[in-house]
Amino acid sequence: MAFVTRQFVRAMSSSSAASAAAKKIMVKHVTVIGGGLMGAGIAQVAAATGHTVVLVDQTEDILAKSRKGIEESLRRVAKKKFAENPKVIKTPMTSQKTFESLIDFSRSLGKHPVSCKDTPGFIVNRLLVPYLLEAVRLYERGDASKEDIDTAMKLGAGYPMGPFELLDYVGLDTTKFILDGWHEMDAKNPLFQPSSSLDKLVAENKFGKKTGEGYYKYK
Amino acid sequence: MAFVTRQFVRAMSSSSAASAAAKKIMVKHVTVIGGGLMGAGIAQVAAATGHTVVLVDQTEDILAKSRKGIEESLRRVAKKKFAENPKVIKTPMTSQKTFESLIDFSRSLGKHPVSCKDTPGFIVNRLLVPYLLEAVRLYERGDASKEDIDTAMKLGAGYPMGPFELLDYVGLDTTKFILDGWHEMDAKNPLFQPSSSLDKLVAENKFGKKTGEGYYKYK
Repeated sequence: MAFVTRQFVRAMSSSSAASAAAKKIMVKHVTVIGGGLMGAGIAQVAAATGHTVVLVDQTEDILAKSRKGIEESLRRVAKKKFAENPKVIKTPMTSQKTFESLIDFSRSLGKHPVSCKDTPGFIVNRLLVPYLLEAVRLYERGDASKEDIDTAMKLGAGYPMGPFELLDYVGLDTTKFILDGWHEMDAKNPLFQPSSSLDKLVAENKFGKKTGEGYYKYK
Repeated sequence: MAFVTRQFVRAMSSSSAASAAAKKIMVKHVTVIGGGLMGAGIAQVAAATGHTVVLVDQTEDILAKSRKGIEESLRRVAKKKFAENPKVIKTPMTSQKTFESLIDFSRSLGKHPVSCKDTPGFIVNRLLVPYLLEAVRLYERGDASKEDIDTAMKLGAGYPMGPFELLDYVGLDTTKFILDGWHEMDAKNPLFQPSSSLDKLVAENKFGKKTGEGYYKYK
């Protein structure tokens, strides 16, 4: 990605800027398949940055909710701070032209795209989920309390949230879903082993903030 | 720790506050053994919060440097923002009285103490070092560049530094020293396996920021 960026900057600053740019696709119309958390967010950002957006979803409710979200975001576009930094995933079937065009498209959305191979969890989840589970295991071993682990990581490492706060925020069902998928693919990796406290909370429908209880209690 | 805190608050707000407080040791004089990064920092904070401090070290140079640091910190005490949140480590030989007194002492230094059993890396290093090494392995597998991993963790996870920036800041020699120690204690744990890029950089005396080069180049 850094290389692509430099290449692009060079192209734009050279006399052949026009021809170099012509080789790429200018994205104007965006079709988003699936209006869940990510899809709706992408549609919002694309709409707010002047792209024509078509959002496709099987469920009418989701479409109506996403449409409302997009309209609201367009109204407060000047103030809006968009979450989620895009990763442009390059698979063996992605052409360099498509890849570079998507990098440009991400930039046009005001984002800082990063590049990653098509690997489980890409960058952030691949590093974040095992760290969260290591924190759970530290707690399960009885080495420290949830509260003290959260405090230590916030004050000692400067993290915006402690691991247990983040787990409850992300959703324990979501975290377990990711972990179980990785465990199925790579059963011997100790980073991907199930956690007894996570399994217990999910079995009790305590998914975190959204259900009022997870590792902590809310409301 | 959270329990101890609540106990303490209850004691202080009850009518038996004086007798409860009398059971604990009020720390007024502090002796710090070793004037390295941590010892000098503890001595500075203790001096700045009105404690009598004796700093013990074998090396004259370190003592002189620490003394200078303490004097400087006393001069700008109002402005000083102290780093490093204390963990009061409770070993099987630590009495409850000593433990509670140290918790109070930490609070008197303006800190938020957390409690942890005497386990390798305690809380922050036990979670941080394996995460840093997982980032290194992600990079070594060629899944993403150092730069993109750093960007993703800063923008995607809200971390103050990316893993490679942090490794260079902490020092690659220090990180390797910690990792090798853990690997020796628990050779089968894949979290503690050596990293080829880390070993190579340390062998070349590229320890990070302090030597001008680590995963990145400085100056």
